[in-house]
Amino acid sequence: MRELCPALANKAYFNYGGQGPLPTPALEAITASWRTIQELGPFSTDVWPFVERETSRVRAALAALCGVGSHRLALTENVTSGCVLPLWGLPWQAGDRLLIGDCEHPGVVAACRELARREGLEISTLPVLELCRSTPQADLPAAVLQALDQALSTDTRLVVLSHLLWNTGALMPIAAVAERLAAHPRRPWLLVDAAQSMGSIPVQEAAAAADLYAFTGHKWCCGPEGLGGVALSERVLEQSQPTLIGWRSLRHEGRAGSPWHADARRFEVATSCVPLCSGLARSLELLAAEGSPAQRLERIRAGSRRLWDGLQTIPSVRTVLPEPPPAGLVSFSLKSGRDHAAVVRQLGAQGLWIRQLDDPDCLRACTHITTTEAELDRLMAALAQAA
Amino acid sequence: MRELCPALANKAYFNYGGQGPLPTPALEAITASWRTIQELGPFSTDVWPFVERETSRVRAALAALCGVGSHRLALTENVTSGCVLPLWGLPWQAGDRLLIGDCEHPGVVAACRELARREGLEISTLPVLELCRSTPQADLPAAVLQALDQALSTDTRLVVLSHLLWNTGALMPIAAVAERLAAHPRRPWLLVDAAQSMGSIPVQEAAAAADLYAFTGHKWCCGPEGLGGVALSERVLEQSQPTLIGWRSLRHEGRAGSPWHADARRFEVATSCVPLCSGLARSLELLAAEGSPAQRLERIRAGSRRLWDGLQTIPSVRTVLPEPPPAGLVSFSLKSGRDHAAVVRQLGAQGLWIRQLDDPDCLRACTHITTTEAELDRLMAALAQAA
Repeated sequence: MRELCPALANKAYFNYGGQGPLPTPALEAITASWRTIQELGPFSTDVWPFVERETSRVRAALAALCGVGSHRLALTENVTSGCVLPLWGLPWQAGDRLLIGDCEHPGVVAACRELARREGLEISTLPVLELCRSTPQADLPAAVLQALDQALSTDTRLVVLSHLLWNTGALMPIAAVAERLAAHPRRPWLLVDAAQSMGSIPVQEAAAAADLYAFTGHKWCCGPEGLGGVALSERVLEQSQPTLIGWRSLRHEGRAGSPWHADARRFEVATSCVPLCSGLARSLELLAAEGSPAQRLERIRAGSRRLWDGLQTIPSVRTVLPEPPPAGLVSFSLKSGRDHAAVVRQLGAQGLWIRQLDDPDCLRACTHITTTEAELDRLMAALAQAA
Repeated sequence: MRELCPALANKAYFNYGGQGPLPTPALEAITASWRTIQELGPFSTDVWPFVERETSRVRAALAALCGVGSHRLALTENVTSGCVLPLWGLPWQAGDRLLIGDCEHPGVVAACRELARREGLEISTLPVLELCRSTPQADLPAAVLQALDQALSTDTRLVVLSHLLWNTGALMPIAAVAERLAAHPRRPWLLVDAAQSMGSIPVQEAAAAADLYAFTGHKWCCGPEGLGGVALSERVLEQSQPTLIGWRSLRHEGRAGSPWHADARRFEVATSCVPLCSGLARSLELLAAEGSPAQRLERIRAGSRRLWDGLQTIPSVRTVLPEPPPAGLVSFSLKSGRDHAAVVRQLGAQGLWIRQLDDPDCLRACTHITTTEAELDRLMAALAQAA
């Protein structure tokens, strides 16, 4: 895989959680798809079977990764669209409460706030950040469930929690949370931001248990930017109306008054870029050839453990998690109070790419199956010098 | 231009209103953009200036075509997103009335119906289809304005009207409609679906006069599928809140509680496909090299006039418009009551691609600057035989 990614040839790359490298065979699949569309169409009876095949192929591959039927999988432009679009069309009542984890991405939080403003909803916070910092992984699920029990109230209608937290790198017990919510009198919907989990850890159990499990193809799946998806529960398919509506939402695309698609396609909108489907399908094949999600996670964790262990030996570095991470996200800060953004620039000048996060104020380096020990050792040496 | 489009090499193509052909230099610009992103990033301090440059370049080009400042131009995935996203966030009041043209695309109509259902709005219809069929072009603006005056009521809050009607091919007097609405006590917003006008006719006057002027790059602009835009009025920028919200809507993308962008970027969402910007920018350059929008429209009209004139000589064909079309859309039906979809397939088998529309039940052939007289003559001969 590594040799197939030109992005990895001229730098030591640790920003897989921001965007993954695009393997050359995926780019070739994209351009081949465009050529085929031009040869057969672009708008003709001859081209539709190809468009349908490429769209269905990536939908089926993503649905299989999520452990759900293809009818539950909507293709979206990005993880935000997948999180937010089905949310607007749920049957909200004024006074309903949204319970949002305190490590959620600002984009999703902003969307929930605007939803709350328009629909007269309340917002509460589920505190997990401090739990991540202080709790050994074996005890984290129980601690999160305890925090959930304390934060749930009789009017809670939605819980928003990422599967793998983008800032701390900790794993949330999504299936157990779903089970807890199923026992709540209001049966709150569970929205899971899977931006960091899809492609990096096995997601079937969580994706099948959530009401909305939204992800992108351009991070850990190493697909092109501009294509993601969301797995929806049967009850969301029954209860939610589409909001961003176009010809792809409609069962009879050319007819006014057509009903929505009964399946997840009702949340797809209008023309999107079909060649991206060809590219993501190819990237998923390349990843699958490297082993099962569980086998790949082992390799990802070997890298993140090496990095986490090494960071313990640099006196001025403090890791956010108290143990080696459950996946590939390694967050840490410099005790000296150094400007993290300046450190990112300084490392970048040496061809080492990590990123800085605002909340908590920290640095984040990611390891994927393509990460080498030599890269990690270079990063640690540079960090020791910078710190 | 024609020689640059592989799609046009092996067929006689008349579906520009469905999707335009992608010139090879545009596809090359897309793949070059991807290679550059991989070389510099994909997620690094080094890549952001390139991403910003490619995004700004296409935004500026589209804004210039619309005759508005770049701050009024939001990039979207398709024309539907541009029509619908800014609409949801306007300050609706229950009882507000939406006045929708009877030739609007079913996707936009479905979105307006769902908006009306949730916000308690009323819907009325602006009848223009029969006017298109019966009115000479010189008289059509006055006829449409008269119909508008009759359809407007004191509670009208939005008018939805395409610039160039996708089914009849008639031109709507958008600037005059905007002027009429400015004199209405409620000053209704004007939403213009520009799917068929952008890239085929000069749009500056209409785009600058509308509140939302939404278009796509993949039809008459001959850009890649998956990228469009919307020009927004200053008052929409002031009054409308984003609905589909992600990091790109926020002024400080990494911070919870960040305000929206003050400009049109508040309606952009999250990660989209930057290489598509490089491709559309290239297609727009290629079009510009063929002449000004007005000069290109002359060429487009020469083709549509040849086709319209020729269709008058086929006894069993009836054109929808009573005169040669104002742009490149030529709609017609077969008087014999033949199944139009079957005719599309029959012509397709001969390498001639037109499309069928449901409402009104008709066939549609488009002419662009790439259309040749020989293609048109082949089409007319085949139609004469089929009819």
